[in-house]
Amino acid sequence: MPPLDLSHALATEMPVYPGTEPVAVEPRATRESDGYRTTRLDLDSHAGTHVDAPAHLVDGPSLDEFPPERFRFSATCADLRPLDPRESVGLDTLREGLAVDPAEVDLIAVVTGWDRHWGEERYFDHPYLTSKAARWLADRDCDLGVDTVNPDPTPTGRAAADEPEGFPVHEALLGADRLIVENLRGLDRLPDRFVLHAYPHRFEGADASPVRAVAYPEEHDAGD
Amino acid sequence: MPPLDLSHALATEMPVYPGTEPVAVEPRATRESDGYRTTRLDLDSHAGTHVDAPAHLVDGPSLDEFPPERFRFSATCADLRPLDPRESVGLDTLREGLAVDPAEVDLIAVVTGWDRHWGEERYFDHPYLTSKAARWLADRDCDLGVDTVNPDPTPTGRAAADEPEGFPVHEALLGADRLIVENLRGLDRLPDRFVLHAYPHRFEGADASPVRAVAYPEEHDAGD
Repeated sequence: MPPLDLSHALATEMPVYPGTEPVAVEPRATRESDGYRTTRLDLDSHAGTHVDAPAHLVDGPSLDEFPPERFRFSATCADLRPLDPRESVGLDTLREGLAVDPAEVDLIAVVTGWDRHWGEERYFDHPYLTSKAARWLADRDCDLGVDTVNPDPTPTGRAAADEPEGFPVHEALLGADRLIVENLRGLDRLPDRFVLHAYPHRFEGADASPVRAVAYPEEHDAGD
Repeated sequence: MPPLDLSHALATEMPVYPGTEPVAVEPRATRESDGYRTTRLDLDSHAGTHVDAPAHLVDGPSLDEFPPERFRFSATCADLRPLDPRESVGLDTLREGLAVDPAEVDLIAVVTGWDRHWGEERYFDHPYLTSKAARWLADRDCDLGVDTVNPDPTPTGRAAADEPEGFPVHEALLGADRLIVENLRGLDRLPDRFVLHAYPHRFEGADASPVRAVAYPEEHDAGD
C-alpha cells in the first residue's frame, strides 16, 4: 500500500481560522518573461494542514526546539463517525473509537469526517473534544491529530456550559508538551496502524508550521 | 542513530537566489494581545531548502503531479570536498566521490561543503556540476541533492566557455522528469546510505516548494 497524502492543498482563498489573514499562492517569475517559473507563498503558520507547538498557547517549547524524530509519529485512528455539527466528543466516545491501545502509539488521529466540508461554511461547525478527553490523551503522552480546523470549538467560547473558557483541549495537550496536527484530510482511508511524517519548517520560536502530512501504512515501515 | 535535519532555518534576511524577493518570518498574534501566538510566513517557492519540479524550467510536471512516495528518496552522498569557489565538477570527479552504485539509489547528494558559507557573499560563489555530469545522473534515473543554492553556476551565464548557456544542469535533470533538492546542509554527517524525506507543500502547478529535509540513516529504516 503506497503512502497517503493527509494534507489539504495550499491555495489563495483556502479556508483559514476566523480572523487569520488569507493565504496567497501567486505566480511570480514566468517561463515566458524570465525563462523559469517561481511562486510566492504568503501564509500563516497555522494555515492548512499544520502542527501546533506548545509555544502557540502556553509558556512551552516552540517547534524548533524539538528534534526531527518528534514529527515522525507511530499513529492510530479513533473513528468517531457519524457526528453532528458542533457535537461534543467525550472520553467514552473517544475510547470506543480506538482500535489500538494508546500506550502503543505516539499520536491518535480523531476521525470526524469533517474534512469533507473543507471550503464550506460548515467546516467551522465541526465537532470538538471535551477537556476530559484531551487530558486523558495528555496523561498517556499522546499527540493529537484532527481532521478539523480545531480540536476546541470554533470560534472559542462556544463550548458546552460545563466546559472551561478558552481553548481547554489545546491547553491540556500543549501544556503537557504534546503536539496537535490540525486540518488533516482523508483519515478514513488509513489502516489501524500507520506512521505519520509531518515535519514542520524550522524557524526561531515557531508556534506552528504548515506541513505536508504523509502516512505510511505500518506494514511498509518495519523500521518503526 | 537519530535522523538528521538537512534544512536551513527560515528567517527574515536569509539568503535567497539573486533577484528573488526576500523571506519574511514575522510575529502576528501574540499571547499578550490575543491569548495565542501566530507567525506570518512570506516566502518564494525556492526559498531555503527546497525541491525543484520539472515545471520550474521545462514543459514538465509540477510537484503536485507526483505521488508522495516520490519525495522519499533512497540516497547516498558524493563527497567532493575540498572544492574551490566556482570550481566546475565533471563526471569523473562525481563518480570518484560516490561510495555507492547509483543504480542502487534514487538520489545522489553532492557534498561541496558550501553550506558552511550560508549567510555570506561567498555562498553564491559555489562549485557547480557540468552538463555531462548532470546528463549521467539523468540517464541513471537519479535525482540530485546539493548543499548549494544551485547546481548550475550563480548567476546564470558564468559557466566555463565550453558549457551551454542557461541552466544546463537543471535542464538535463528536470527535462528527464528528475527532481533537484537545493540548499541542503550538514551532508558531511551522513553515512553511505540514508533515506531522505523531503515532502513539498501541495499547490496547483507547484514549480518548487520549501521542505523540511530529514535524513534517516538506512539501518534505522528496514522498510526501505
